[in-house]
Amino acid sequence: MGVLHRFVGKEGQFEWENVPVENYENGGAVGGTRCVVIGRQEGANNFSLRYYEVRYGGQTSFDVHDHDHGVYVLRGTARVLMGREVVEVVVGDVIYIPPNERHQFENIGDEPFGFLCAVPL
Amino acid sequence: MGVLHRFVGKEGQFEWENVPVENYENGGAVGGTRCVVIGRQEGANNFSLRYYEVRYGGQTSFDVHDHDHGVYVLRGTARVLMGREVVEVVVGDVIYIPPNERHQFENIGDEPFGFLCAVPL
Repeated sequence: MGVLHRFVGKEGQFEWENVPVENYENGGAVGGTRCVVIGRQEGANNFSLRYYEVRYGGQTSFDVHDHDHGVYVLRGTARVLMGREVVEVVVGDVIYIPPNERHQFENIGDEPFGFLCAVPL
Repeated sequence: MGVLHRFVGKEGQFEWENVPVENYENGGAVGGTRCVVIGRQEGANNFSLRYYEVRYGGQTSFDVHDHDHGVYVLRGTARVLMGREVVEVVVGDVIYIPPNERHQFENIGDEPFGFLCAVPL
């Protein structure tokens, strides 16, 4: 059966009905939270969609792994390391990070930086 | 190598650098366009991310297929058939449509309805 998670964010918060907000500070990440909006819990076996948020001054961990990422920026501004490049991204930008490419997101704005991230399961 | 598609939408348009806007009116869809923001073209082999937009009064096709969908609403309001349910969705809402569940999106707002859709490859 299909699953609907209604957006229930208020006053600048991004949250969804029946989706817990997890701390995400492992592996060098600083000031991060994660909401798994689609995953095993929803019955998904092919891909997962997660919402990550990094507070002012925070960053995600420096990651290299064998799965790829699809990223859609929902709020804020970040400097992104992807492979040998560093780019700045804003709301609406899309990034594809292929397998085994190093990557890291650093919030360089004055508000939280938030993005959707698709990953294969 | 990673790929960045910058958002270049203006005046209510959702468009990305180096991503064509395709008509999407096959199979019963009315008034639709599609932008494949992540797919084979970007080197992705596990999943694809597409942006679909349905104009005022339009709808997607009535679909049943063996792959699943992850949907994130980016603009507008729609009535969504998912399985035996009909729900209304707005910006920020997340929907998971499992394999073989019938689904259709009908724009019921007064502006375009647009959503990101993840699908396995």
